[in-house]
Amino acid sequence: MLTRYHSVHADTVPAEVVVVGAGPAGLTLANLLRRNGIGCVVLERQSRRYVENRARAGLLEYRAVEMLRSHGLADRLLELGAPHGVCEFRIGGKRFILPYSDLYEGRTHYVYPQQELVKDLIEAFVDSGGDIRFEAKDVALHGISGSAPSVTWVGSDGEQHRVRCEFIAGCDGFRGVSRPSIPAGGVREFSHQPGIAWLGVLAEVPPSTEHVIYALHPKGFAGHMLRSPTVSRFFLQCPVDDSTAAWPDDRIWAELHERFAVPGSDWKLSEGRIIEKGVVDMRGHVTEPMAYGRLFLLGDAAHVITPVGAKGMNLALHDAEVLATALAGYYRGGDESGLTEYSETCLRRVWRCQEFSQWMTTAIHGTGDRFEDRTARTRLENLFRSPASAAWFAENYVGLM
Amino acid sequence: MLTRYHSVHADTVPAEVVVVGAGPAGLTLANLLRRNGIGCVVLERQSRRYVENRARAGLLEYRAVEMLRSHGLADRLLELGAPHGVCEFRIGGKRFILPYSDLYEGRTHYVYPQQELVKDLIEAFVDSGGDIRFEAKDVALHGISGSAPSVTWVGSDGEQHRVRCEFIAGCDGFRGVSRPSIPAGGVREFSHQPGIAWLGVLAEVPPSTEHVIYALHPKGFAGHMLRSPTVSRFFLQCPVDDSTAAWPDDRIWAELHERFAVPGSDWKLSEGRIIEKGVVDMRGHVTEPMAYGRLFLLGDAAHVITPVGAKGMNLALHDAEVLATALAGYYRGGDESGLTEYSETCLRRVWRCQEFSQWMTTAIHGTGDRFEDRTARTRLENLFRSPASAAWFAENYVGLM
Repeated sequence: MLTRYHSVHADTVPAEVVVVGAGPAGLTLANLLRRNGIGCVVLERQSRRYVENRARAGLLEYRAVEMLRSHGLADRLLELGAPHGVCEFRIGGKRFILPYSDLYEGRTHYVYPQQELVKDLIEAFVDSGGDIRFEAKDVALHGISGSAPSVTWVGSDGEQHRVRCEFIAGCDGFRGVSRPSIPAGGVREFSHQPGIAWLGVLAEVPPSTEHVIYALHPKGFAGHMLRSPTVSRFFLQCPVDDSTAAWPDDRIWAELHERFAVPGSDWKLSEGRIIEKGVVDMRGHVTEPMAYGRLFLLGDAAHVITPVGAKGMNLALHDAEVLATALAGYYRGGDESGLTEYSETCLRRVWRCQEFSQWMTTAIHGTGDRFEDRTARTRLENLFRSPASAAWFAENYVGLM
Repeated sequence: MLTRYHSVHADTVPAEVVVVGAGPAGLTLANLLRRNGIGCVVLERQSRRYVENRARAGLLEYRAVEMLRSHGLADRLLELGAPHGVCEFRIGGKRFILPYSDLYEGRTHYVYPQQELVKDLIEAFVDSGGDIRFEAKDVALHGISGSAPSVTWVGSDGEQHRVRCEFIAGCDGFRGVSRPSIPAGGVREFSHQPGIAWLGVLAEVPPSTEHVIYALHPKGFAGHMLRSPTVSRFFLQCPVDDSTAAWPDDRIWAELHERFAVPGSDWKLSEGRIIEKGVVDMRGHVTEPMAYGRLFLLGDAAHVITPVGAKGMNLALHDAEVLATALAGYYRGGDESGLTEYSETCLRRVWRCQEFSQWMTTAIHGTGDRFEDRTARTRLENLFRSPASAAWFAENYVGLM
């Protein structure tokens, strides 16, 4: 058979759906598709070992956990993950505790590192006979505008492979191949940079807190997030053009100590070995619509959100759920409405989270002494003065049902 | 008697407090002071006729009305003013009604033109024997840093007058003499321009609506506010550097028709004679602290807020209430705490209103097609999707108790 893919591996079977990318979005989708009897192949550029150790997000919304639980994908999460319903703000060296779970019908977050969820989802998928190809290089999407798309890649065997399919799920992140496969003008891109950057730090140290801390200090914001009993995540506001070269370990600890300080209290920050650091782009980015022809974009491939409010992974899981439901409707009874509405359904939540993240980004960066800093501080202080304000925050922070 | 004020009118009696400016702040303060037996003189640059016809704000918060009522100053307001608990947003040619009063324990706004309130307050003050001097020119504040301040002015008799006093209440607006009387460095000024302006229009026409309308249109925001059965207030978003020359009457009506349009509905905008137009600065401005020595700043003299959310007059009334209570405490039993805390007490509400006005300004100007417009629109749409969001809005819009 002569095709332009002359080296295509002969035995590659067709699938209904090709899932590009084995992150939370792709793996959740793949598991839900299998549960609906829809054939799929997952392609991942990295090795299994790599993705199972890639530290990223760590805070799951209540509804995301419920969704995973309803599909039997949350056993280990519920066993090892920690429910969280309280966060802390430090303003002017004083501590303000916000019991947001109490304000939203007892619903909690779950602290569970993204790589642990990825492990669980890979295991569930493989155990159920799922077809996942790691170290798939040179992935390319073909014919997404037509009715018979396909995906090619070079496998770990060095051969080029191809899967013909009906749909492609682009779950390969902001810098993946899926989004750029859409012809120019096929979608619109919306972007926003709030003029803020964070230095993100991962350290081998037990958390010095039982809940997330958002600290406002004249030198800038500092955040203490939770990951596991032995690893903690920290953030330090820094200039947008900053680089990790400016942040040797001792400077990081010195700044963390200073920005988290609570004069007169016995609270102390524990230090540990820094295992990762990087400047986090606080950009917001949205692609509209989140589909083009037979290609559907999910998670970071469709939208990027600041870490503020911890919505990125949760949006990815929501996209996966919406698309899985849409595809199930299509394959069960030819109902195309879910696919037609996929983008609109997802974007409603995406924009809502972008708005919340932007609101909260403003609120926790009012560390200076301008008009805008005063209103930002007021926004934060309102959480502790106005039950209505706190209730609004709780709904958005824990995540809308 | 030889003083540097050689032409000072001899028979001017001393007063405990001199109130500079007969707007809502000054007149409310003056009335409350009289009710507490504290002597005061009110100085106003304009004529009585002028201030009684100066159209400005028109929406009173629930608590402002309660405060006036408790001092017997709301009789006419309650008779003629219209309680309002509903507002309308128009987004993409569709109408969204928000019954905010229902969401805040039935509390309502009152629509009552500022000049009517000014009339009531002048009458109440004069009836109770209050001393008010209209057409007081060249008002100057002296000795505000010391313990024996005084105020001089040239009266309608052409003579220079002087009142020695213990305290001066600067209620003469953003461009008055009080604020600039504070020595350089004595207070800090915070300012913010959101990059937006409004053309404000007053027209002799019955309102075309029973409630305030905030309309979002690709050409920009339009607002229809209520004043009286025969006079209506309109706003049109315009460039910051725009001037009224660019807005002949026919263009104003054409733009209002277009921006308020509701395709498929029988809603119609009535036209009338335009009696006033001007470009409204959407600047936010705050002076901290709101006091210097024996001078206290109230209302616009201390802070300027955008018309969005209609907080300006309400803040002025709140300042007056706080200062009157503080002065009453001082004169009753020598308690200085109210005076010491005056600025902090007022600024808490001032910043909260600035934050709300800024939040709402963003929300109603998402008329373009950028990332920021999408999140702004989302902010507005949330009011109709999320009860928590609507409750938060209601509390801030009707005004905190």
